Formats: sequence, structure tokens, C-alpha cells
Amino acid sequence: MRIATFKLNGQRHVGQVSADGKHVTAFALTEDQAHHGAQPIIDALVAGHALPELAGTPHDITHVHLEAPLPVPRRNVWCVGRNYHAHAKELQASVFKDSNTDTKAWPIVFTKVPECVVGPKDDVHLPGAAISDQIDYEAELAVVIGKGGKNISHADAMSHVFGYTVVNDVTARDVQMRHQQWDMGKSFDTFCPMGPWIVTADEVDGRNTRVRCWVNGELRQDGPTENMIFDIPTLIETISRGITLYPGDIIATGTPAGVGMGLTPPRYIAKGDVIRVEIDGVGSIENRFV
Amino acid sequence: MRIATFKLNGQRHVGQVSADGKHVTAFALTEDQAHHGAQPIIDALVAGHALPELAGTPHDITHVHLEAPLPVPRRNVWCVGRNYHAHAKELQASVFKDSNTDTKAWPIVFTKVPECVVGPKDDVHLPGAAISDQIDYEAELAVVIGKGGKNISHADAMSHVFGYTVVNDVTARDVQMRHQQWDMGKSFDTFCPMGPWIVTADEVDGRNTRVRCWVNGELRQDGPTENMIFDIPTLIETISRGITLYPGDIIATGTPAGVGMGLTPPRYIAKGDVIRVEIDGVGSIENRFV
Repeated sequence: MRIATFKLNGQRHVGQVSADGKHVTAFALTEDQAHHGAQPIIDALVAGHALPELAGTPHDITHVHLEAPLPVPRRNVWCVGRNYHAHAKELQASVFKDSNTDTKAWPIVFTKVPECVVGPKDDVHLPGAAISDQIDYEAELAVVIGKGGKNISHADAMSHVFGYTVVNDVTARDVQMRHQQWDMGKSFDTFCPMGPWIVTADEVDGRNTRVRCWVNGELRQDGPTENMIFDIPTLIETISRGITLYPGDIIATGTPAGVGMGLTPPRYIAKGDVIRVEIDGVGSIENRFV
Repeated sequence: MRIATFKLNGQRHVGQVSADGKHVTAFALTEDQAHHGAQPIIDALVAGHALPELAGTPHDITHVHLEAPLPVPRRNVWCVGRNYHAHAKELQASVFKDSNTDTKAWPIVFTKVPECVVGPKDDVHLPGAAISDQIDYEAELAVVIGKGGKNISHADAMSHVFGYTVVNDVTARDVQMRHQQWDMGKSFDTFCPMGPWIVTADEVDGRNTRVRCWVNGELRQDGPTENMIFDIPTLIETISRGITLYPGDIIATGTPAGVGMGLTPPRYIAKGDVIRVEIDGVGSIENRFV
């Protein structure tokens, strides 16, 4: 099932996308429920309740404004750094300069504020050169947590995955590096395009898919998720060690090689650039940087 | 004014503390409003509305269960590392090993998850030696943001401070260091005791007060906030650069020297320890580690 959050005539709805991807039909939710996007659907299914009824007729998906499936996630988005070998290598002289890039190192986990999430086709606002002139893209598969828990074992971890969505973990490299801790350089307003929907875990296996990213039509990133240094169960096991995970938590699982900073010379995002992130079996997002 | 969140007969209330600190009188809020603690009071005052009416009679403050003033903050708590010279020095061989400890460096900002907040007298749960055996305290003044904004100037920053509260930024040192990014080692369940209330900014100036911490009655930390490397206006200016701050955002402003890891040999928190953090003009919290 694909669950999309969308606006129609100024009102937010949450709906189920048709098998051919061409239509979306809203669930019967109150305005207060729909305000939280897919969260009430996740909560209902985790609690073992039935899906809400579908309300009304299918809408042509090109006639609605798709939003991020969780327009303002319940808390900061968990994000993973240095999680593909080739990416760890391309940034080892800068972002990961102090890292042990072999697989014995521990995952690097930071966060993005919930309010920097925007929709799959929304504009991303460059903050201006006075704040940062090194804005970079990071195409990522994001895991959406279903059943919550703490100290989740590797063996049980996949049963806590509700589904997947696509994220561009937009980053201000200069800010990321100079403050040492990354949360700020990752959290500028509009710096987390997400969507186009959540695909439930029964339809795709995030451990075995493909993440690609194009800048103005040029393929820059292309990585199979099997190449993750820390696989999805390890990430869930690690983050939930001592920390309760909740339904609707999001874990962006890291980016493959090919980010702008890793090119020689580096190529940062310029005004007008259009960046497309596509994940096989999940979908694509495409955002203009303005 | 001091604004406290408390439970009485199993129900959450938000109230005003009497001048002598002995009583608390609830505001007339709906259950839904009170669920968010002091947030609706902050929102009302920021919007220029009157305070809600006080409802009913004053309660003896020793007869209510004080909770954190914002029991689950609206998003991850912003926290500042390396913000007192003597503390930067005591940890320069470990946590701040890569830091420039002079004042030209940039602030280090990380986060704690909202759900790790507990009340001013609540127990803190040690996660067990298999997860961490290096649990440490950090006594901190926390700023509560009132009026939101982005790209807030140093000159305007204090007008965005709604008030102050006390935080113990409890930290798993081993986890903090091995993952390089600190959010996980700072976010274990119950790792953010907060309270006992919010004191509004007209009653105390956070730039000029005193932070102290006792472990089992032994004074370990004692720092004037004038000794911060980055003062409160600089922190607000820095975090809001490109990132919108919202009413109810919390910024824990860093800890003075004297943490357990800085002692020779290090002295980490043991089961049964009682840690008290007091800030002049704000109040104190005291938590047992179990």
C-alpha cells in the first residue's frame, strides 16, 4: 500500500494511492487527524485496528498537491552519516576526517528538525551565501517506524519497519563542519524534501533496492542499499539501544557516493538546480532549489 | 512569574507558583491544552493574549507531583557543548579532542529527544552496563524561547527569551564518543530531568546567574553563566541562522567544569546517586539515579 498526504482545495487529506499510481483516494479522517499526515494511519495499523474507510472518489494524482507523508514528523528525523563505503571514502578528508572508515566503526547518527520537512515537489530555499555557499544533496532511503520499542534486537528489527519513503538530506557543508555536531547544518528551513508517499514494508524490502540522484538530469548518485555499511536492522538496533522508538519515527539511512562535495572540484547546489531522488519500488521526489 | 506543570489526582495541570514558592494555582485550561504543559501559556503570551484565568484554590506545592514544565517539548531539545572555558579544558582530551578551545571556535549544537524529558524529582534510569557504564551529569541553564523567528540578531535575541528552567543534560560518555555525533548518547530514556518550573525572563537574567551541581551532597559544579564562551544572545543568533525557532523551543546552554568525566580518575554515576542542580533565581531539581 502507498499512503500519501496531499492538499486539495487548501485542505489536507491522507489517502491511498491506486495500484497504477495515477489516483489517490482520501481516508475518512477528521481535520485534526489529517493534520498529522500518515501518523494516524500508522498508529491505527500498529494498534491492530482496521484502516479508516476510504471517503469519496479517487482524485487524479496530478491534480492534488502532494505533501510529505509526515508533513511535520513527531520529533527530529534520525539520520545516519557515513553509511556507504564509497561515500565514506569520498568525504574522508573532510566530513569524516576523524572516522574509522572500516566497518568496525559505529554508526554516526544525527538529526534534522521536523519543521524542515517539505513535500516531494516543493521548492528548497537556499539560505543565501552569507549563511552558507556549500549546499549539497544526499539521496537517501528513509525507514518509517511502525511498532515502537526499546532495545530492539537485530533479529526483530524488520518487524518494526512500517514502510519506506524517499528523502533528500540537504546539507550545508560549511555549517556542518565548523560546528562539529551536524544537526544545525542539516536543519535549515526546507532542507528535508520527503515523499512522494510511504510504501508499506510488504511491498518493498529496503535492504535490497537502489537509490539514485540526478542534478539537472545528470546522474550523480547510484547505490544499491545492499552496500550500506550498517544495514537497516543494525541501525534500528543501534538507535533503540536505551532510546524508545515510536510509531512514525523516521530514520534516513545514509547516502551513497556522488555528493557534490565529493567531486573534484566540489560542485555545490546553485539557484535553479533541480534535484531528483528516485528509489526503486518506493518512488521519486524532485525539488527545485530557489 | 513561575509557571509549573504538575499532576494532581492523576490529572495534569499547569499553574502559577506563588511568590513564596509554597503554593501553585492551576490555570483554567482544557485537558488537551494542559497535556502540552506550559506550551499553551507561552503561545498565549507570545500572541499578546491575556493569561488564562486561575481556576480554583492554591495547592500546597509539596502535595502535587511537579512535572517538567514542558513534559514533551515540541521537538528535540537544542543543547550546547563546550560552552564554559574550564569545562572545555577538562574534556579536551576526550569529548572535545578535535575542538579549538579558544573563543574563536563555533558553538557545538546537538539535540536530545523530547521523550527523554522527566520531571524535577523523577528518577533517572541507568540503562545498564551492557549499554553504558559511563553515565555523567551536566548541570545547565535552559532558555525557553518565546517569540519565534529566523536569522535573529544578537541585539534582538533577548527579546525572544520567554524564560528559563533547569536541566541536567545526562550523558552516556562512551556512547557519545564512539558514535562521534552526540544525539544518541544524550537521548537515553529519562536522560533530561527538567524543572522545577519556568521562570519568566522579567524575573531573572540568564546571562548573569550561577549554576551549581551536587552529587550526593558534594558540590561538583559551580559556574557563573557570565563565564559562557558563547553568551545566550550568540547562541540564539547562531541556532536561528537559517533555522526558524518556535515558541517553546528549549536551548540547554552548556555545563560548567566539574563533570564526572573531568575528574581524575573519572567518577561516573552509580545506582542510588542523587544529583541536585540549582540555578540562582530559577530553582533546583534533584533526581535519584536508579
